[in-house]
Amino acid sequence: MQKINETIERILPLDSQAMDAARAKQDTLTKPQGSLGRLEELSILMAGIQRTGLPKIEKKVIVTMAADHGVVAEGVTLYPQEVTAQMVQNFLGGGAGVNVLARHVGARVVVVDMGVVSELAPHPELVNKRVAAGTANMARGPAMSEQQAIQALKAGIEVVEMELDRGLDILGVGEMGIGNTTAASAITAAVTAAPVEDVTGRGTGLDDKGLKHKAEVVAKVLQLNLPRGHDGLDLLCKVGGFEIGGMAGAMLAAAAHGRPVLIDGFISGAAALIANLLAPRLCNYLFAAHLSVEVGHRLILQHLGLTPLLDLQMRLGEGTGAALGISLVEAAVRVLGEMATFNQAGISGAEE
Amino acid sequence: MQKINETIERILPLDSQAMDAARAKQDTLTKPQGSLGRLEELSILMAGIQRTGLPKIEKKVIVTMAADHGVVAEGVTLYPQEVTAQMVQNFLGGGAGVNVLARHVGARVVVVDMGVVSELAPHPELVNKRVAAGTANMARGPAMSEQQAIQALKAGIEVVEMELDRGLDILGVGEMGIGNTTAASAITAAVTAAPVEDVTGRGTGLDDKGLKHKAEVVAKVLQLNLPRGHDGLDLLCKVGGFEIGGMAGAMLAAAAHGRPVLIDGFISGAAALIANLLAPRLCNYLFAAHLSVEVGHRLILQHLGLTPLLDLQMRLGEGTGAALGISLVEAAVRVLGEMATFNQAGISGAEE
Repeated sequence: MQKINETIERILPLDSQAMDAARAKQDTLTKPQGSLGRLEELSILMAGIQRTGLPKIEKKVIVTMAADHGVVAEGVTLYPQEVTAQMVQNFLGGGAGVNVLARHVGARVVVVDMGVVSELAPHPELVNKRVAAGTANMARGPAMSEQQAIQALKAGIEVVEMELDRGLDILGVGEMGIGNTTAASAITAAVTAAPVEDVTGRGTGLDDKGLKHKAEVVAKVLQLNLPRGHDGLDLLCKVGGFEIGGMAGAMLAAAAHGRPVLIDGFISGAAALIANLLAPRLCNYLFAAHLSVEVGHRLILQHLGLTPLLDLQMRLGEGTGAALGISLVEAAVRVLGEMATFNQAGISGAEE
Repeated sequence: MQKINETIERILPLDSQAMDAARAKQDTLTKPQGSLGRLEELSILMAGIQRTGLPKIEKKVIVTMAADHGVVAEGVTLYPQEVTAQMVQNFLGGGAGVNVLARHVGARVVVVDMGVVSELAPHPELVNKRVAAGTANMARGPAMSEQQAIQALKAGIEVVEMELDRGLDILGVGEMGIGNTTAASAITAAVTAAPVEDVTGRGTGLDDKGLKHKAEVVAKVLQLNLPRGHDGLDLLCKVGGFEIGGMAGAMLAAAAHGRPVLIDGFISGAAALIANLLAPRLCNYLFAAHLSVEVGHRLILQHLGLTPLLDLQMRLGEGTGAALGISLVEAAVRVLGEMATFNQAGISGAEE
């Protein structure tokens, strides 16, 4: 836990002087004040995060974490559990949605095995941080031990620290794990106190009957485990997942090193809930890339006080939304850094 | 008018066979069906526009058209008219918002003088299509003659045809012209029959008093000129602008050559209203890049049946929103073209 606590303590409030400098510069650029809307706001937040009036983004990284979930034994998903491992191979082969969108925005994808059921063949680009061969079935007890939860958080921190060495100016987090929307629903219900029905969605495509059953499983999981909605570690142990812990740790490490984090969809949102409970300063470093179709995601973003950048009716996860969001944050930073000022361009100002 | 009519006649319905092929391919890609939401829809529309199941985007172009407006004599704007010409220089120097965002998405910016009041020095990258030194004051009579309106439309067609030779797979349209939100408000009111107050916004930043005065001017312009809301050419003559005509022509030419068009904010939206009246098939080729803060833009998009891709509280124009939209359409096309299929990746499908 020491490593985790050290990381949390390193997360600073945003640099308000840098934000003031960025805000002042925005108002000298050749456009009516405020006319680039959220791009201006993003650039100012980026100044506060990077602690400079002139933030820059060069190295973009999406960490995609995979793990399996014992709760699939309850019949909460449409796809068989083997798909988690198969999709890891797809990530490594460059053929998944996140690979395509990451290439499009110039980000590299880091694939992490946080605890897939089937052992994966070693691959030069696969980061092995396996906690165990999937979580336990949380419909029968806690998803993991406290030691495993700490291991998952620590692994997430280590992955980001390793990537910092290769260059990381902005982080997107994403995931793959058959059954993980069930864990995200349980976390969201526990943290926001929303009814189970309001946080349980169709995942990869459940029908009405499947959705009803899944909500019943989420309710059972909560009744059995009684996770404490204000205790991030307790939530992770009882109703979490290894990839959820890994993403939470990754977020903490990014913030601790003054890097912004794009959260993706519902599951990375649930990881953000946990990370933000562990470190309430974290949410200053978070951007919501998009609003997922998965019901419950909206509640998470409201709880974190985040307004999504995109609403494209996506629900794939993996970091696909985060990739698109990274491009928008980069656009914002480039506007601040590259636009001419009224003085430079010799342009008349507004008439008073 | 012959060139314009020929262009309009070349606009085909979308290719439904290509769309079916794209739709079928989407459902074989390694993701739950529909989970990439609007990216999937965009890729299918692109298939219909490019008439191939495998659309591609390589060359991206933003045409930014500038012109002045006689109606500024009525005191409807905050910035002096000379800013139009100054901003053209800024576009040519690469320092404006549209330049930065176009670089970010890999698009080239084509700057067109459609009729700026002050003569501009020749520049190798400035396309000279001047119709006149600004429109007439539409608060005293029609903004332009029918001959001028036809010239503006034709100029827009010619600009796109010239750029097609250099390579153009997707077009964004944008503009600069002090006073042009007043023209856009008049067009929108005439076409949608909405009250003047609902289509008149603050432009570059009018206060309440300025806004009230602007709405009165728009009402006066409409009462005086009585533009016919179903007649694109009549609208352009009476309450349009040279850059609005140029953008309308550019849209027609792009669609005629099977290229999609990203419309930007309120003024390019008004141009789309005119172009769509001239060629009702056009709207199949249009994507709404974003929802502008400028009131009235929402009504335009509703009228055209378009759902904006982004809502970032922007209101700069120039093609800034179109640039970001181009990147999303490109992302959609890349998903369709580059993602692995379930078969290729050896991934198990959903359990029936």
